Amino acid sequence: MNIKFTNAKILKTDMETHSFAIEEGQLWVKGNAIAYIGDGNDSAAKTAEEGVTWDAVRDCEGNLLMPGFKNAHTHTAMTFLRSFADDLPLQDWLYKQVFPREGQLVEDDIYWLDILGIMEYLTSGITSNFDMYFFPPKNAKASVDAGFRTVQTSGLNNFGGSCEIVEENYNIVNEMSDLTSFIIGFHAEYTTSMELMEGIAKLCQKYKSPMFMHNSETELEVKECIERWGKTPTELTDSLGMYEYGGGGYHCVWMQDQDFEIFKKRGLYAVTNPGSNTKLASGIAPITRYLKEGIHLAIGTDGPASNNCLDMFREMFLMTGLAKLREMDAATVPAEEVLFAATAGGAHAMSLFDCDSLAVGKKADIVLLDLMQPNMQPENNIVKNIVYSGSKQNVKMTMVNGKVLYENGSFDIGFDPKEIYAKANAIIGRMK
Amino acid sequence: MNIKFTNAKILKTDMETHSFAIEEGQLWVKGNAIAYIGDGNDSAAKTAEEGVTWDAVRDCEGNLLMPGFKNAHTHTAMTFLRSFADDLPLQDWLYKQVFPREGQLVEDDIYWLDILGIMEYLTSGITSNFDMYFFPPKNAKASVDAGFRTVQTSGLNNFGGSCEIVEENYNIVNEMSDLTSFIIGFHAEYTTSMELMEGIAKLCQKYKSPMFMHNSETELEVKECIERWGKTPTELTDSLGMYEYGGGGYHCVWMQDQDFEIFKKRGLYAVTNPGSNTKLASGIAPITRYLKEGIHLAIGTDGPASNNCLDMFREMFLMTGLAKLREMDAATVPAEEVLFAATAGGAHAMSLFDCDSLAVGKKADIVLLDLMQPNMQPENNIVKNIVYSGSKQNVKMTMVNGKVLYENGSFDIGFDPKEIYAKANAIIGRMK
Repeated sequence: MNIKFTNAKILKTDMETHSFAIEEGQLWVKGNAIAYIGDGNDSAAKTAEEGVTWDAVRDCEGNLLMPGFKNAHTHTAMTFLRSFADDLPLQDWLYKQVFPREGQLVEDDIYWLDILGIMEYLTSGITSNFDMYFFPPKNAKASVDAGFRTVQTSGLNNFGGSCEIVEENYNIVNEMSDLTSFIIGFHAEYTTSMELMEGIAKLCQKYKSPMFMHNSETELEVKECIERWGKTPTELTDSLGMYEYGGGGYHCVWMQDQDFEIFKKRGLYAVTNPGSNTKLASGIAPITRYLKEGIHLAIGTDGPASNNCLDMFREMFLMTGLAKLREMDAATVPAEEVLFAATAGGAHAMSLFDCDSLAVGKKADIVLLDLMQPNMQPENNIVKNIVYSGSKQNVKMTMVNGKVLYENGSFDIGFDPKEIYAKANAIIGRMK
Repeated sequence: MNIKFTNAKILKTDMETHSFAIEEGQLWVKGNAIAYIGDGNDSAAKTAEEGVTWDAVRDCEGNLLMPGFKNAHTHTAMTFLRSFADDLPLQDWLYKQVFPREGQLVEDDIYWLDILGIMEYLTSGITSNFDMYFFPPKNAKASVDAGFRTVQTSGLNNFGGSCEIVEENYNIVNEMSDLTSFIIGFHAEYTTSMELMEGIAKLCQKYKSPMFMHNSETELEVKECIERWGKTPTELTDSLGMYEYGGGGYHCVWMQDQDFEIFKKRGLYAVTNPGSNTKLASGIAPITRYLKEGIHLAIGTDGPASNNCLDMFREMFLMTGLAKLREMDAATVPAEEVLFAATAGGAHAMSLFDCDSLAVGKKADIVLLDLMQPNMQPENNIVKNIVYSGSKQNVKMTMVNGKVLYENGSFDIGFDPKEIYAKANAIIGRMK
C-alpha cells in the first residue's frame, strides 16, 4: 500500500539529545517504508512521487503521527492467565498458579494467545514486541499471520529446552519473515545451570548475537546469585562472555555499582518493567542513575499475568512516576527520556534500527494519536501530554510495516476478535 | 428518559464485605433513577413497567453495567495547566508556575476549563467529582449545564476568601440543583490562619456539615504543623471541632498513629491521590493500614496539572500497586477494595449515598464497560480485569442522573468539543 498522510503533526526524534520536535506537514508511506516527510511541495516530494500510484490519502486533521511504541520485554501468550490469580504472595502465584498451568499449554494454544496479545498491543500503539516464551516458531507464525513485528529471545532454563533447540529456533525464526527475528537469550541465572549458560555464551559468539535475560528483578535473586557464584547476575553473565555483541537485561531493579559499570562498558540495555515490578512488589528500578550514567533504556510491559495489561501508556507514566518516588524528586526522569525509551530505546534494544523513528527510509511502524480528546488539551506540550496524560483511547490508528492493522477500534489482522476471545477463554477454561 | 438496558452483566456491590457479584440480566432506568434490575420477567418487572413509555431499549451485548466512578478529590479547572510545566522541583512548579497563572484566572475561565475536565471525566467513566477551586457557583453552573454531578468544597486560605464567602457559596451551590452540592472545607493547615480555621469549625457546627481539607500530603507539611501547633493536621483540626459531622482528608500520606485513631473514631474518609503523589514525589499513602483499621477509603485524581490526567483507571492501578511496593507484598490491597473505594467509597465520602451502587432506587449514574476488548479477555475475573487491566478505551457509555452524556467517543453535553479545546488553549495562551 502507498499512503499519503496529510495535515499531520509529525513527531521527529533527536537521537543525540533524546528530545523531540513536531513538524506539521505530510508523511508518505510507500510499501513498508516512509518515503517522504515535508510540506508536499518541495523537490524531495516530486522525487518521492515519481511513478507512484497512491492507494489512499488520509487527512490526519492535525493529529499526531508518531513512531510506534516498542514493548521491549513481554511474554505475550500469558494472556490466558490475566486476572486468573492476582493479589497473592509472589511465590504462591508463580509456583501454585502460573507454572502448573503453563505446563498444560500446547503449541496451538500459543498461537491464539499470541494473537490476543497482538490485538492488545495494537490498541496501545505498540508496533513490535520483544517476546520470551514457549514455542518461538509458533509465536513467529502468529505475528507473521497478523502482520505484526516480533523479536524473540529464548526462555531456556533447567525445566525445558536445550542450546540445540535455541539454535534451531534462532535460525527458523530469523529466516521466517522480515517481521520476525530472534536474539540469543535465556530465562535467568536462578533457573539455569552453568552448563546451559556456557552453551548460550557460545551461541552468542557463534552468531555474533546480543544476549538478553531476566536480570536482577528481585533482591532475593541477586543475593542468591552472589551466594552461588560470588558474582551478581550481570557480573556472572559478563564473565561468561555473553555480551561481546551487546544485549541487556529485563527488569534490572536491584543493580550493584559494578553492574552499572558493565552495562556502560558493554553498551547494554536496561529494559524496565515498572507495571510488573509494581504489581509483583519487586521494587523500583534506578532509572535516574541509568540516565545519569548514560545507560540505554527501553520499556516493557512484562507478561499480562504480572501486569495485567499490555499498555505502554501505563508503563510510561510509571517509569517516571516511580523514579520520582524513589528519589523523592519531582524533577527526575523527564517525559522526553521516557518517550525516547518507549520508542527509539526499545527499537535499538531489539536491534530494530530501521523502526526507531519517523524518517525517510525507516519502516512504516506508525501510530496516529488523537489529540482532539480532552486528556490531550490544551496543547501546552504534546510530549508531556503523551507521557503523563496519554491513554489507549488516544490511539486512532496503528500501522505496522506499512499496513494499517488497527483503526478507530477495529482490527484488520485477518481474525474475528470474538473468535480469539472464545479461544482464550476455552484455553484457560480447560485448566480450571 | 426511560431506558431499558438488556443483555447486560450488572455489577452489584456488597456494602458489608466490599466485594462484588455479577448478575446477568436487565437494568431499567426511569427518569434519573434505577427502577429495576432482574431478568425482566418477574413480578417486580411487571410493577416497574406499569404506565411507563420506554424511550429506548439498549442491547448491552453482554457488556458490563457498573456504578460510575467517583473522583473524590480534584481541582477540575486546572486543566489549563496540564503539561504546562512538568518535571520541575515541587516548589518551583507551585510558586513560579502554578500560583502566578492561577492569579490571572477570571470567573468565566473557570466555566470553560470545568467543561473540559467534565468531558475528560466522562471518558473515564467518572460520574461525579469532589471539587475544590475558585468560584464555586461558576463551577456548579458548568456542571449543571453539562448535566454532570459535582460536589464542591471550599479552597479557603489566607490568600483569598473569607468564611462569609464560604457560607454564601455553601448556600448558593446547595440550592442550585440536585446535581450540585457543597460540603464545608478549606485548603490546608499550612495555608490557613487559625482565625479562618475556627470560622470553618463554626460553619461545620452550624450546618452539621462534614469537613474536608488537604491533609498530610507531604512530610514537610506535617512536620511544620507540629512545629507550629504541637499537633498533626488531623489532631489540630479535630481539636477545633471540625469533624463532629464527619468528613476526611485529601492525600493522607504522612499519617501518625494518633491520626489513624481520629479517622477511626470520627468515621473519616482518607481520599487517596496516588497519581498526584507519584508525579509530585509526595510519597505513598498507607493504604494497607487504612484497610486493616477499617478506615473508609476513596480515590481522587487531584487536579490535572499534578497528575496530569483525570483517569480513574490509572488511579486504581496505582492505589494497589504503590501499596504493594510500599509493603513489598504482592498480596496487599486486593482489587475488590480498590474498586469499592473508586465507586461506593467515593460516593459515601461525597455524601452521595444514593449514587453508590447499582440498585433499585439509586440514581442512574452508570457506566457501560466494553468487555469485548483484548485487555478484558479472557474473563477470568472481571473485577480484577477492571482494576489491573481496565482503560478509558473500555468506557462505551457514561450516564449521569439518567442521561447518556458520553457514548462511543461522542459527547452529548451541549458543547462542541473543538470549541472547548479552543477556549482552553486561548486561556493558557493569554498567560504565556
